[in-house]
Amino acid sequence: MANEPVRIIGLDPGLRRTGWGVIVSDGARLRWVAHGVVAPPEAAPFSERLLFLFEALGTICADHGCEEAAVEEVFVNVNPSSTLKLGHARAAVMLAPAKLGLAVAEYSPNLIKKAVVGAGHADKSQIAFMIKRLLPTAGDVKADAADALAVAVTHAQLRKRSLLEAMHRGAA
Amino acid sequence: MANEPVRIIGLDPGLRRTGWGVIVSDGARLRWVAHGVVAPPEAAPFSERLLFLFEALGTICADHGCEEAAVEEVFVNVNPSSTLKLGHARAAVMLAPAKLGLAVAEYSPNLIKKAVVGAGHADKSQIAFMIKRLLPTAGDVKADAADALAVAVTHAQLRKRSLLEAMHRGAA
Repeated sequence: MANEPVRIIGLDPGLRRTGWGVIVSDGARLRWVAHGVVAPPEAAPFSERLLFLFEALGTICADHGCEEAAVEEVFVNVNPSSTLKLGHARAAVMLAPAKLGLAVAEYSPNLIKKAVVGAGHADKSQIAFMIKRLLPTAGDVKADAADALAVAVTHAQLRKRSLLEAMHRGAA
Repeated sequence: MANEPVRIIGLDPGLRRTGWGVIVSDGARLRWVAHGVVAPPEAAPFSERLLFLFEALGTICADHGCEEAAVEEVFVNVNPSSTLKLGHARAAVMLAPAKLGLAVAEYSPNLIKKAVVGAGHADKSQIAFMIKRLLPTAGDVKADAADALAVAVTHAQLRKRSLLEAMHRGAA
């Protein structure tokens, strides 16, 4: 099962801009499928901005036939009000694949950097550079979408471990 | 329009326990309809706990024919990790009525206390006491659901103002 090709969506949540990227992981090979950014209307009431994120990402997951999802864990050492808003956005983003029955894996920023760049303290430009190398058909990818593709790549590399852990959780 | 009876769901979000309460506001009269608590399975993966909240509350909104929703604004002066989790839960809770096309009003804790008890610094037992007085058919209501009913009562009292503000936003 873990050796069949799988379509993965990576998500980089934000209330203003949420990056997403879809890849296919086929054994050791990765193939780019699509990427983009979802930006809810800023003037809309808060619940409608969340709904916009949820519905746009649900459509994207369905349109691209995504089978698994992955999202970055979040830093909480910013100001509390930003942390709260990011929490809301991240939930809306995670709920979109969850509603479609997809498992949503979570990875820490350091783990993602290690998986993509090989070092836990890489900066954003290194991430974008490596995404270009790993997924050459993606073309020029901007920061939010590059981070989302990096989460997807991380999941492609680590999903066997994730699957084992999920089975372990299920059995516990 | 603002004088027709309206079914309101009040929501008190939490990842472990989310209180909800439905009332009918008919002119100056309030009538209790139902209340309860939704508690996602704690051992489930995070995205599934959010999905549980979202789907359970969507079912409750639909089953009770709710037309408007209201939720408490959140304190952020707890620890950042709790703030982040609460943000996630609150988004899942707000998305349930939003997905059904309901407007979701937000009120600060002080405003809710003022609306229900008449003082901005009432404690939880005063809230529960006043809910019992305002909604006698509700019977004995525990804290999470009492807070949810308090949000619904607040919305019943303040929705004309909210509607005006919403129209103002729409026109801006």
